[in-house]
Amino acid sequence: MRIAGIRRDGGAIEVASLSEDGAQITVVAGLEEFWTDAPGFLSREPAGATVPATDVEFAPPVLPGARVICIGLNYLKHVAEGSFAGEGVPPYPTLFARWTQSLTVGGAEVPVPSEEDGLDWEGEVMAYVGAPLVDATPEEALAAVVGYSAFNDLTCRRAQKLTSQWILGKNGDRSGPLGPIVPAAEVGDLRDGLRVQTRVNGQTVQDARTDEMVYTVGDTLALISRTFTLRPGDLLATGTPAGVGYGRTPPWLLQPGDVVEVEVDRLGVLTNSIVANDARKA
Amino acid sequence: MRIAGIRRDGGAIEVASLSEDGAQITVVAGLEEFWTDAPGFLSREPAGATVPATDVEFAPPVLPGARVICIGLNYLKHVAEGSFAGEGVPPYPTLFARWTQSLTVGGAEVPVPSEEDGLDWEGEVMAYVGAPLVDATPEEALAAVVGYSAFNDLTCRRAQKLTSQWILGKNGDRSGPLGPIVPAAEVGDLRDGLRVQTRVNGQTVQDARTDEMVYTVGDTLALISRTFTLRPGDLLATGTPAGVGYGRTPPWLLQPGDVVEVEVDRLGVLTNSIVANDARKA
Repeated sequence: MRIAGIRRDGGAIEVASLSEDGAQITVVAGLEEFWTDAPGFLSREPAGATVPATDVEFAPPVLPGARVICIGLNYLKHVAEGSFAGEGVPPYPTLFARWTQSLTVGGAEVPVPSEEDGLDWEGEVMAYVGAPLVDATPEEALAAVVGYSAFNDLTCRRAQKLTSQWILGKNGDRSGPLGPIVPAAEVGDLRDGLRVQTRVNGQTVQDARTDEMVYTVGDTLALISRTFTLRPGDLLATGTPAGVGYGRTPPWLLQPGDVVEVEVDRLGVLTNSIVANDARKA
Repeated sequence: MRIAGIRRDGGAIEVASLSEDGAQITVVAGLEEFWTDAPGFLSREPAGATVPATDVEFAPPVLPGARVICIGLNYLKHVAEGSFAGEGVPPYPTLFARWTQSLTVGGAEVPVPSEEDGLDWEGEVMAYVGAPLVDATPEEALAAVVGYSAFNDLTCRRAQKLTSQWILGKNGDRSGPLGPIVPAAEVGDLRDGLRVQTRVNGQTVQDARTDEMVYTVGDTLALISRTFTLRPGDLLATGTPAGVGYGRTPPWLLQPGDVVEVEVDRLGVLTNSIVANDARKA
C-alpha cells in the first residue's frame, strides 16, 4: 500500500491509496480524520471513491501543525565529510526543525533562492508517528511508527551555515519533497538495512543502507518524548548518508534544470527538478 | 485593541478583541479568515458577538501551520552571560524554530519535563507577519508586521544543550505562552525602546529595552525572506535580554509552584505558573 495526500477540485487535502501502477487513487479519509486513527486506516482496504490520478493534485499527507523533526549527523561517513568532521559523533541525535510549509511532493519544482549557489541533496527516510508518545521507551516509540517514505532534505547551505543554528537553510520553499507513505508493517525494521540512493541527472551521488544509522527511530523518538509530547502525524527525518554536494572538491550543488532522485528500498523513487528563484515570485 | 484567540463551546479557534478590563470579548473573525486580511480586521471595530470572557477558552490566535521563527542572542548582555559568551555577537541573527504545538496563552500551567532541573525564563516580544514576503527589503518587511505580543520562550536548558542544535529544548509542551496581540499602529517602533521585564514570584529577573536589540524585526524578516517566503500568520520572536537563570551563579531555574510574569510596555503582563511533569500525562 502506498499512501499519498490529494486534493480534488482544489478542495481540502484527503489521504488516498495509490494503485499498483499509480494510475488511480482510492480515497482513504480526510486528512484530519486519517491521523485520528492512522494504524486503523492503514490496516484495512480503503473505502472511498476511486478516480484517475490525473484528476487530482498531490500534496503531502501531513497535518499543517505537525512537527517535522530532523536528525542531522546520523551516518558516520556523513559526519566525516562535513563541517562537523573534527568533532566526532555527537553523543545524542542532533535534532533540527522543518516547518510543514517547506514540504512538497514528488514532481514538484524546487527553487534555488537568489543568494544560494545551488541546493544540496540529502536523500533519506522519513518516519511517521501514529500515536501519542510521552516519556516513551524506545520499543513503545518504534511501535508508534505507522509508516515511512522517501524524503529529500534539500538544503540551502549558505543560509544553513550563516550562524550556529541550521533552520533557515532547512526551510526553503518546497525544499522538502516526500514520497508516498508505505505502512510500517510492509517496510519492516530500518535496522535491516534499506538501501538509500540519491541520483543527480542519473548519476549516483549517495548510496548507503539504513543499518548504518547511529541513532535508531525508536531511540530518537523516545528521547524526544522525554521533552515534548509527540502527536499522531508528527514526522521524523532520519538523516542523510555520505555523499552530499558541499563536502566535495570542488563543491557540487543542484542548479536550475537538474533532476534529483531519491530511491529507497520498499519506498520507491522520489523525483524532483530544480528551478530558479523567479519561481518563488510566481 | 488587544486580540486573543478563543474557543466557544469547544469549537474552532476564533480571533476576538478584549474589552478594556478584559471582562468581555468581541469576536473578530474565524482564525483562517482573520489571517487572510489581518491588517483589515485590525483597522476596524470588530463586528461579531460580544460574550463574557469567562464563557470562552483562550488559545493562541495562531495558524497551526505558522512558522514560529525565534532569534537567539539578540541582546549584547544576554550573549555575554551564556554559553556563547566567548564568541561575540554573531554576524547574522541566530534563528531557531518553534512549532506552533509548543504555544499556549497566559494563565496556562507549564510542565517541567522529568529530566530537566527546571525551566528557564526568556521574556521577549513576538512580532506577527500579516503579508507575504519574498526577497523583501527591511522596510517592506517591517511594514508587513501587523502586531506584537509579550512572549515567554520557556526553555528546557538540558535538552537545548544536548547537541549543537537547540530545538529540542525550545519546544517543551506549553512552553511558549503568548500574550494578546496589540496592533502595530498602537505599538510603534520597537527601536523606540519598549521596556521588557520578567519577574519570578514577584522578583524582577530581566529588565531591558527593545532598542538594545542587535537585529531589528525588519532586517531579520528581510533576511529570512531571501531564503523562504513568509506568509500571513508567521511569527518572529525577537530574542531575550540578559538575566536568564542558567547563566547565574548558582543557576536558578523555575520549579513547580513558581509564577513567572513577562511585562512589556504597551503589550501588558503575561503570567504563567509552573507545574510538574505529571501534567504532561493528564
